[in-house]
Amino acid sequence: MFNDNINLIQSKLNKDLKAIYTSGPKSLVDTFNYVISGEGKRVRPLLTILTSESLFEDFQKSYNAALAIEILHNFTLVHDDIMDDDSIRHGKETVHKKWDNSTAILTGDLMLAKSLKILSDSNYNSKIMKSFNSALVAVCEGQALDKEFETLESISENDYFNMIEKKTSNLIAMPIEIGALAYDYPDEKCNALFEYGLNIGKAFQINDDYLEIISSANVMQKSLDSDIVLGKKTYPIILCNHIDKNFVSDLKNNSSDIKDIINDLRIFIQRHGIDKEIKNSIDNFYQNANKLSDNINFKNNKLINFVNLLKKRQK
Amino acid sequence: MFNDNINLIQSKLNKDLKAIYTSGPKSLVDTFNYVISGEGKRVRPLLTILTSESLFEDFQKSYNAALAIEILHNFTLVHDDIMDDDSIRHGKETVHKKWDNSTAILTGDLMLAKSLKILSDSNYNSKIMKSFNSALVAVCEGQALDKEFETLESISENDYFNMIEKKTSNLIAMPIEIGALAYDYPDEKCNALFEYGLNIGKAFQINDDYLEIISSANVMQKSLDSDIVLGKKTYPIILCNHIDKNFVSDLKNNSSDIKDIINDLRIFIQRHGIDKEIKNSIDNFYQNANKLSDNINFKNNKLINFVNLLKKRQK
Repeated sequence: MFNDNINLIQSKLNKDLKAIYTSGPKSLVDTFNYVISGEGKRVRPLLTILTSESLFEDFQKSYNAALAIEILHNFTLVHDDIMDDDSIRHGKETVHKKWDNSTAILTGDLMLAKSLKILSDSNYNSKIMKSFNSALVAVCEGQALDKEFETLESISENDYFNMIEKKTSNLIAMPIEIGALAYDYPDEKCNALFEYGLNIGKAFQINDDYLEIISSANVMQKSLDSDIVLGKKTYPIILCNHIDKNFVSDLKNNSSDIKDIINDLRIFIQRHGIDKEIKNSIDNFYQNANKLSDNINFKNNKLINFVNLLKKRQK
Repeated sequence: MFNDNINLIQSKLNKDLKAIYTSGPKSLVDTFNYVISGEGKRVRPLLTILTSESLFEDFQKSYNAALAIEILHNFTLVHDDIMDDDSIRHGKETVHKKWDNSTAILTGDLMLAKSLKILSDSNYNSKIMKSFNSALVAVCEGQALDKEFETLESISENDYFNMIEKKTSNLIAMPIEIGALAYDYPDEKCNALFEYGLNIGKAFQINDDYLEIISSANVMQKSLDSDIVLGKKTYPIILCNHIDKNFVSDLKNNSSDIKDIINDLRIFIQRHGIDKEIKNSIDNFYQNANKLSDNINFKNNKLINFVNLLKKRQK
């Protein structure tokens, strides 16, 4: 029953996303619709819509913002894939691989432009514009920190949490906040919802980092090895570095087979109890989130159930 | 006296632009301020400010929008330079050459994000947001058309005018319109000012295309040859193609010396009266612009004088 509701909203989103950019320069209409037809789960617009549903049993006022948020999210994916030179996204070739870098840069720019135009054409209030644009700045800064960390030997947990808060959590927290802002919900409650989103966003990202090492590429549907090859400072890598600062770099120097590297990483992670530390950290962020959501008077559990569904995926 | 006023505003803009992004990830703070410290003439924010000055003898209400517009303009330059692989901008190395493509993509994204944040933090009305975001979509589409045209043998004048209207003129027309919108000037007058901007924008772009062929690289302070090498469909090239569709491609096939190619182009342009045709076209757009501005009750000539100054540059 709950899943039926999610599926219905996903279908509506998919249909409406396809209607957004149908006339324009062929090179952009093609790429925009290629990206937007991807097999994304539409998590972020669902967060907006289900927040509105849970608070006001309606999502008409936040629906256009939800569409804009999904397009914004796809803008970040297209540009991130160029920067990380990823070749597969949601099981499909990335834009810069299928076309070229210039086309992918411009596709991302156009997606961002269209998402903004949807917002302003919908006459949203200035709080929504501020929330959206602040998250956009944060996402760019988070991506910059992520890239900066690649060149550093070791970083602290706090630096990592700050980076994922900007890069990932803002695009979870802002969609939730906007689901409330669209109905002029009180500022302090909107702030609490935003903080709630930051916490579950961090838990999601840490879980993703962990799954990237313990699951197979097939499950995650993205190239598993690129993060390790690039020297990305994911949470398990940071914790490995803290136990033995040379372990990960030695692994990479001693083997060129990514499967061997990942296998040795998994053994190291279990031997030193890093897996438990990671799970504790995830639980901490979920507990923080729960404390914040306990103070919100939801009319139903649609948002909370959806977040629980996201929690459980691929565990 | 008039120039003193322009210089004063330029100094104020330069000072305030440098204060906008001083804390954040080092990689972005460095590049943002590198770009923003370039020797740009600040034409677009000046258009906003001088429109406000000419209509209302004040520019306080439009000043933050003017800053946002200059940053938006710089976002387009950073991304365009990657796409066109230009190495010099305003006499300095471009971001993707001095750093790398990833840094340049993200620098552009952050610049756009900051410009939007300035707008929303300034609580501008929805008409300003719509004007800004519509221009942003147009600029992306114009750039896409410009890239698409590179691969086409020949394009019509109308296709070219449509492309430069989106790519160049929107970033002239929108700044002027916002100089009026910030003071709640009547819609029909704002539209007329926007149309005025589209016309002078087209005249500027055609003039730039012409100057790129008849002036030296030193004067234009950008790499003169890249447009011809890339196969860009500038106005003189289009008119050459219309007289002899093989002339330009033959030139490129028969010589690898860009100086020879340009010299032959110049001779062809003069022999076939293309230079006169170009000047006529520029005059036409200025006349259209004049008709539109004649219906606006300016309190002084600050905007008109500035536009005349831009007209005369490098003639």
